Amino acid sequence: MTEPLVLKNNRVFVLDQRFLPLRKKYLEIKSADDGFRAIRDMIVRGAPLIGVTAFYALAIEAKRGTKPLFKKAVKMASARPTAVNLMFAVKEFEELLLQRGGSPRFGEIALKAAVDFHKREIEATRRISENGEALFSKPSAVMTHCNAGALATTGFGTALGVISFAYKKGKIKEVFACETRPYFQGMRLTAFELKEANIPHKVVCDNTAGFLMKKGLIGAVVVGADRIASNGDTANKIGTFSLAVLCRHHEIPFYVAAPMSTVDFSIKDETGIPIEERDSKELFSLLKRNCSRKSQEALYYAFDITPHGLITAIITDKGVVSPVNASTMKRLLKAK
Amino acid sequence: MTEPLVLKNNRVFVLDQRFLPLRKKYLEIKSADDGFRAIRDMIVRGAPLIGVTAFYALAIEAKRGTKPLFKKAVKMASARPTAVNLMFAVKEFEELLLQRGGSPRFGEIALKAAVDFHKREIEATRRISENGEALFSKPSAVMTHCNAGALATTGFGTALGVISFAYKKGKIKEVFACETRPYFQGMRLTAFELKEANIPHKVVCDNTAGFLMKKGLIGAVVVGADRIASNGDTANKIGTFSLAVLCRHHEIPFYVAAPMSTVDFSIKDETGIPIEERDSKELFSLLKRNCSRKSQEALYYAFDITPHGLITAIITDKGVVSPVNASTMKRLLKAK
Repeated sequence: MTEPLVLKNNRVFVLDQRFLPLRKKYLEIKSADDGFRAIRDMIVRGAPLIGVTAFYALAIEAKRGTKPLFKKAVKMASARPTAVNLMFAVKEFEELLLQRGGSPRFGEIALKAAVDFHKREIEATRRISENGEALFSKPSAVMTHCNAGALATTGFGTALGVISFAYKKGKIKEVFACETRPYFQGMRLTAFELKEANIPHKVVCDNTAGFLMKKGLIGAVVVGADRIASNGDTANKIGTFSLAVLCRHHEIPFYVAAPMSTVDFSIKDETGIPIEERDSKELFSLLKRNCSRKSQEALYYAFDITPHGLITAIITDKGVVSPVNASTMKRLLKAK
Repeated sequence: MTEPLVLKNNRVFVLDQRFLPLRKKYLEIKSADDGFRAIRDMIVRGAPLIGVTAFYALAIEAKRGTKPLFKKAVKMASARPTAVNLMFAVKEFEELLLQRGGSPRFGEIALKAAVDFHKREIEATRRISENGEALFSKPSAVMTHCNAGALATTGFGTALGVISFAYKKGKIKEVFACETRPYFQGMRLTAFELKEANIPHKVVCDNTAGFLMKKGLIGAVVVGADRIASNGDTANKIGTFSLAVLCRHHEIPFYVAAPMSTVDFSIKDETGIPIEERDSKELFSLLKRNCSRKSQEALYYAFDITPHGLITAIITDKGVVSPVNASTMKRLLKAK
């Protein structure tokens, strides 16, 4: 399997996901700023991977002996607004910095902590995959959106982890991967991972999801998450909300799979989740080729929010929440 | 305004819509086969324009003195399966051929009939635009999908005709154009036409529609149609059905605008409408540039069907049908 982040001789390399599957290229993260740019420019993406990359990049900066590091940490947290994993990773680094920042060996300490953080994320994806697999019974086709596989999370993936575990047990026949405009994470990354895993799949345009459901071809939808509020309201890649509405209309289960590092108990509901609006020029370029006139106006929300009422279950490493609401979510908080 | 089809000195030229807005190039239709290819390869598209192009191409073939012409007509009708306008245009040509085919001046007769057919389509779009405009009251933003403007229909357009007439009367503030994967008719063609008409607009990815509705930004959705069954079930560009479901969820009016030449009273309901499945490779190329691996599997339905129950009103040149069902649609049949 293709790894999105590799640690080798205490050096950190990330896969440039912008050009997959046409080109497989790793870039070294030599500083906090390298990590910041990798996250902001979507060289790495996927909420858990963003958190892991941020932690490693700060640790690498610490190894360089940079002082003070708080400024770098604050900047890092601002690289992208929606995925809360980034904030949690930075916070954990800051706490370590407060406790151990005075040590002459802080660089090594920080890198060890980054490895530990990374391992916990990997372990979380294994548990999510097991917990989610148990929800499937009869063999059917599932749909997923964007990429919530190993490329987004390291380990087994969240939504794709659930799907691949269920596939191995014969509970999933086929996967429909929504291409996921404008970055085509579904077409480029999810299809790439499913191919590597030998799981039968087809790419479809995002606008085809409803029709496939109408035709009875979809047994369930499984997606990842970028931030989940205390009541279960879930921010995820733009298009997720539409899928949830279409699932409700067709009475199809709609599952969210995410690690606890994506659940933000500090916010009550969707109103507390900032939705990133990216440069709308990104709509008009594909693999850096412009496909429209410069003067075109567009609107590009990178994420949307699915209210908890439309979510059949949230699958986490600490267990499955269903039905999804503020009181059922509280059990997770206790398990944390 | 940019015309999709131009008749000049008895020669027919069509705009190659595949490369708009980056390139504006007209191709001459010198034979029925030229017309067939223009339709099949989506050089021209949009149900009414397909019908008009087919009629002109057969007339041009008649002017060349080709005999017999029936074979050309039968082939023409098979260029694309979903838009019924193509079949109606070919049928009208065939009837003319039966009646007047023996005339030594049949070429001229056929070209005159093509011009008449074309004029009727233009007049239909004017009436649709007027009938539809009357449905709007307070100023709001509307969304449209694919391209149902003058480029698709000649004349004023269907959905875009309604929108531009309502805009001129101050009843529409802004238009959200869904980009419409995989051919980007919304991004390339609708945005191009709205720009020419100086109507404020923004392009959005298809997967963003639901979130914009959730935010309360959409007052209505207006789309065209490729074929409408006797009970009002409507085939249109893939993604239309999802928009209709999203409208229902958000209690937003969902309008279909189409000429009578799109209503197929020979079929009872959606089960009679063939849905074109195109080569899935088309998903992976943008302006002829491949953006994925050759081995990728995909599924590409070019259209979907919206059941009549999800349609607030069907706006035709013969009047507005609302609510939409088999018995209200019967009135149209009488008006025909």
